[in-house]
Amino acid sequence: MKLEHIGIAVANLDESEALLQRLLGRAPYKRETVESQSVTTSFFTAGDGAAKLELVAPEDQRGPIQKYLDKRGPGIHHLAFEVEDIMAEMRRLREDGFELLQEVPTPGADNKLVCFLHPRSTGGVLVEICQSRPE
Amino acid sequence: MKLEHIGIAVANLDESEALLQRLLGRAPYKRETVESQSVTTSFFTAGDGAAKLELVAPEDQRGPIQKYLDKRGPGIHHLAFEVEDIMAEMRRLREDGFELLQEVPTPGADNKLVCFLHPRSTGGVLVEICQSRPE
Repeated sequence: MKLEHIGIAVANLDESEALLQRLLGRAPYKRETVESQSVTTSFFTAGDGAAKLELVAPEDQRGPIQKYLDKRGPGIHHLAFEVEDIMAEMRRLREDGFELLQEVPTPGADNKLVCFLHPRSTGGVLVEICQSRPE
Repeated sequence: MKLEHIGIAVANLDESEALLQRLLGRAPYKRETVESQSVTTSFFTAGDGAAKLELVAPEDQRGPIQKYLDKRGPGIHHLAFEVEDIMAEMRRLREDGFELLQEVPTPGADNKLVCFLHPRSTGGVLVEICQSRPE
């Protein structure tokens, strides 16, 4: 399991991109809307081999990111780990007592299949596991 | 600026180490107490070249981690970026409008000098910059 990206919940993608660009001294390299989660994402590299930073902004009032912003405000939202076989990893984690937020993986940003784990089973950390799909 | 580690606030270091070990499938590689911040830390690798995961537990009731736990509960606490020249980076960030939480760097875990930025100037993300000290 390798740390793949860190998700950061933001209210306004333009403003947050500009702020992170000033902080890191580099520009985002892509934007992508993820329909299944009602969000638009923006990606920054964070150094050679390092996990990416993913800004996540709500596309509308329905999605989980808007609920998160309403409750906790903007900030670090989740840690995502790349796995080789997401189905096997979901099974392993479920059998080990972790609480999965979904029965099957869903399409995420960056051409991946993703599955989230409930923070109450992971010490308050929202964890995503993800697997790259063939191009 | 390269992502160096992700700090995770925890109440009980033994329990959280065991949980993260089950999640990641690997053991922590060291523990270290940081007197200046009244915390004990525990480090996990998160894949080749990836940032480390740092569990941060309060040593007593006085430190900032205990305050964070009281207010927000356990969870992802900060993102730390390695810089080459922390004094120059602090100056650059201050001049660019970021709010530094300290005037001078302080000793952190892992033989580093560290400086924190106030989350209200970084979109709700507690950011640490750090510089390795000569061995």
